[in-house]
Amino acid sequence: PLIAVLPGDGIGPEVTREARRVLEALALGLDFEEAPVGGAAYLLTGRPLPEETLALAKKADAVLFGAIGDPRFEALERRLRPEAALLGIRRELGLFANLRPATLFPALADASPLKPEVVAGLDLVIVRELVGDVYFGEKGRRHDAEGLRQGFDIMSYNEAEVERIARVGFEMAKRRKKKLCSVDKANVLETSQLWRDVVNEMATEYPDVHLTHMYVDNAAMQLVRAPAAFDVIVTGNLFGDILSDQASMCAGSIGMLPSASLCAWSGDNGMYEPIHGSAPDIAGQGKANPCGAILSAAMLLRHSLGNEEAALKVERAVGEALAKGARTADLGGSMSTAEMGDAVLKELV
Amino acid sequence: PLIAVLPGDGIGPEVTREARRVLEALALGLDFEEAPVGGAAYLLTGRPLPEETLALAKKADAVLFGAIGDPRFEALERRLRPEAALLGIRRELGLFANLRPATLFPALADASPLKPEVVAGLDLVIVRELVGDVYFGEKGRRHDAEGLRQGFDIMSYNEAEVERIARVGFEMAKRRKKKLCSVDKANVLETSQLWRDVVNEMATEYPDVHLTHMYVDNAAMQLVRAPAAFDVIVTGNLFGDILSDQASMCAGSIGMLPSASLCAWSGDNGMYEPIHGSAPDIAGQGKANPCGAILSAAMLLRHSLGNEEAALKVERAVGEALAKGARTADLGGSMSTAEMGDAVLKELV
Ligand SMILES: CC(C)[C@H](C(=O)O)[C@@H](O)C(=O)O
Ligand SMILES: CC(C)[C@H](C(=O)O)[C@@H](O)C(=O)O
Repeated sequence: PLIAVLPGDGIGPEVTREARRVLEALALGLDFEEAPVGGAAYLLTGRPLPEETLALAKKADAVLFGAIGDPRFEALERRLRPEAALLGIRRELGLFANLRPATLFPALADASPLKPEVVAGLDLVIVRELVGDVYFGEKGRRHDAEGLRQGFDIMSYNEAEVERIARVGFEMAKRRKKKLCSVDKANVLETSQLWRDVVNEMATEYPDVHLTHMYVDNAAMQLVRAPAAFDVIVTGNLFGDILSDQASMCAGSIGMLPSASLCAWSGDNGMYEPIHGSAPDIAGQGKANPCGAILSAAMLLRHSLGNEEAALKVERAVGEALAKGARTADLGGSMSTAEMGDAVLKELV
Repeated sequence: PLIAVLPGDGIGPEVTREARRVLEALALGLDFEEAPVGGAAYLLTGRPLPEETLALAKKADAVLFGAIGDPRFEALERRLRPEAALLGIRRELGLFANLRPATLFPALADASPLKPEVVAGLDLVIVRELVGDVYFGEKGRRHDAEGLRQGFDIMSYNEAEVERIARVGFEMAKRRKKKLCSVDKANVLETSQLWRDVVNEMATEYPDVHLTHMYVDNAAMQLVRAPAAFDVIVTGNLFGDILSDQASMCAGSIGMLPSASLCAWSGDNGMYEPIHGSAPDIAGQGKANPCGAILSAAMLLRHSLGNEEAALKVERAVGEALAKGARTADLGGSMSTAEMGDAVLKELV
């Protein structure tokens, strides 16, 4: 199988390197091909998502993605900014289902800002819709009736878009603790009301799954109050963006958390990336935590290559390394990115 | 001065009663007039916001609001639901500036799900825009090009709307620790990009305020990681809804937190409500924490009546009651709503 490696900006290259080393160490006969993306690609080619990079991502069996984002390019028009590359790949590959697990490695119970008893047993997955919502609706700048500058963005979902992501949520819950919490803002938004209606209509197909609905403001609160009470959360693109970053802190550090972006429940041709960003402030210093990237590689093994055994092996190796005290700066330690990678590799037996 | 009391649904009447008792005990010669709102008004009159209620709110010098929301009315058309009353008053009174302070009473350091060292010194205010954004844009249901049901909501701000709320943020920061954090999602949304541009344009008027920008996903994370690092956060209606509920948990319980909704920086004719909702599950049981409502009354004294002294007196009384161990169920205690009210009244010297 061919793995496209898109390291991207900031700490992306550093953490992706460690994830790739882990995949290579498993000796599964994978081929790797690298291509530039984001600000890095813009500097080389004048575009954040060159044709060749997109073609490689499409051709590959899976994409290992680093991070994008670079404050130097914030003033560019939107289609030239690093973010356009990420949004472009998601849409072009039809990666509508973003899985963001937040689990607590026991060794990190103390690293969370939340009390140990609050995060004990934390094991949730946020299923975030990734190619719709206010992210991809018509948007622009204009002058309104009074001649004032106005910005607008259209939020919308249709029933098919809601159904396919809700199905991922239901299927996921069925295989886990059978609790699905759908998050919306149906008391204010019509988009959310449709979302809620469709999810409710599907509930009869999943009699064994306990479905609840929660307003997004309440969900943000409950994720602080009692995050361990959640099993699977399914939500739209914008709410999922916010809640998954929030949930990541419960797990100790955003540097720990992986994600998978899939175009089908089965997961072929998925993209895998740590949920942290490019962190320009620490880029190039070898300080970044590679665990989010390494655990993303584990998700790649599981979802795109169907190799559950190898996935578990990687996850266990990360747990072992942490248990033996391996810590990067974000976890209160002093290991470099490469040393953390070494610590994981050593446990990979 | 005339205070309109709108108790509303669920626990609204219980908590509002205690807030009113506190205001009465101050013997400031206030007049009170009550009117139904939300589901309670719908049951009486067939409308969640009767003309008379709105007229009273407009005529009064300030509105003391309880809570609205009742699951029995969720299936009604949107304009008949309890929420329509709250959104209607906000818009009709032009209450564009919602102030949501989150401070930690020292006695409650242990009640927070966050570690004591993480919440120590917490003292932030979220300034939330309240009459624009995706809340009040065109919205609806339709069938899209493929004949599928679709829900849509238009998000937008114009420069005048951004400027007036940002000004509240800047002025607030100027009077506090001089740090203003503007929260948006400018890497994806045009509405946010306009927001950011306008806020940046205003920065020259406030050279003494340290302005930063943060993406909403990062803000949700930082509010878990290091909430005490914030001073003033200014943001739109939707992001403010989510972040303020989240921040409330840092302070121990959403039951503790007040809010003020103002139509001008000076604050005449404002509305004051606890940020918790109607909590139908515990309504009528005398279990609700009245502190959010009581502290809202303190904000009323400060912002609408210009009586800082009385406001501080109420806030100190709440702090004293907590310090002496007064606790409702949400804080791990067993006091009833009225007992908690009594405990505060006793300290009101
Ligand atoms: C970089 C940004 C466009 C992106 C998003 O909002 O989707 C990021 O925050 C993420 O969550 O992957
Ligand atoms: C009840 C609801 C419409 C309201 C809102 O979203 O504004 C509430 O959550 C609030 O924050 O006051």
